[in-house]
Amino acid sequence: MKFAIATAFAAVAIAAPLSSYAQFQNADAAVKYRQGAFTVMGAHFASIGAVVKGEKPYDKLSVEQDAAVIETLAKLPWHAFTPNSATPASKAKPEVWSEADKFKAGAEKMQAETVKLSAAARSGDLAAIKASFGATAQTCKACHDNFRNK
Amino acid sequence: MKFAIATAFAAVAIAAPLSSYAQFQNADAAVKYRQGAFTVMGAHFASIGAVVKGEKPYDKLSVEQDAAVIETLAKLPWHAFTPNSATPASKAKPEVWSEADKFKAGAEKMQAETVKLSAAARSGDLAAIKASFGATAQTCKACHDNFRNK
Repeated sequence: MKFAIATAFAAVAIAAPLSSYAQFQNADAAVKYRQGAFTVMGAHFASIGAVVKGEKPYDKLSVEQDAAVIETLAKLPWHAFTPNSATPASKAKPEVWSEADKFKAGAEKMQAETVKLSAAARSGDLAAIKASFGATAQTCKACHDNFRNK
Repeated sequence: MKFAIATAFAAVAIAAPLSSYAQFQNADAAVKYRQGAFTVMGAHFASIGAVVKGEKPYDKLSVEQDAAVIETLAKLPWHAFTPNSATPASKAKPEVWSEADKFKAGAEKMQAETVKLSAAARSGDLAAIKASFGATAQTCKACHDNFRNK
């Protein structure tokens, strides 16, 4: 039941992205916001990664909470890639804007994988968590390779 | 039903804080994480603030989504106030650590208010949203006054 509700909500969230677009006073604020979202997401992803790599013991609740945070945050950074927000502090490549459809598709793929990761975390099946973690990491890497400067 | 589940979950989340403590390689990483969480939270809080102040039309779904993001993020920054993480980039006052109980109480009050704000947002009662927004803002201010350098 709980699972069904969460999954239904997640599906809606992907089909209809956030309508709660935070408004940004300027490009710097947009960059700070999206980097903040990625930083927090990355920390919780690394936390699951430590379990996947066997560096940290598996604790179901902990992985579930990390995955839930990731699922929520995965919806957020995209609307902060506002036009002309490739500031010096940003690592975003011009392709974010010149290949906007490809960027959007990558973002949606990543969000979809975080939904699956969250479901795997709730299932308590460590093998499924590991598989989903790997699939999610691939979507991170794909965007980093194509859209982020080193 | 949905409300009951969400409220129950939120109550648990406050009673038992996140067990999914992201691990930080060093103080800089902890500071970046907590600042990231506050930045994203602040943007969504400002988004509701614009509605409260009448600068943006009231849209129920939008406010609900903002409040849900705030509620999730409000649980996160605290575990990143790791010992000896008052780096130059941090605005945290020494009182965060020397008055840890007071800081913790403030953090818990804020989290409790974000749960109420989220409930108000789901209710669709704009007057309740405004009242809860004000109460939440007070908890932000209290900590900023006591624990954050300008």
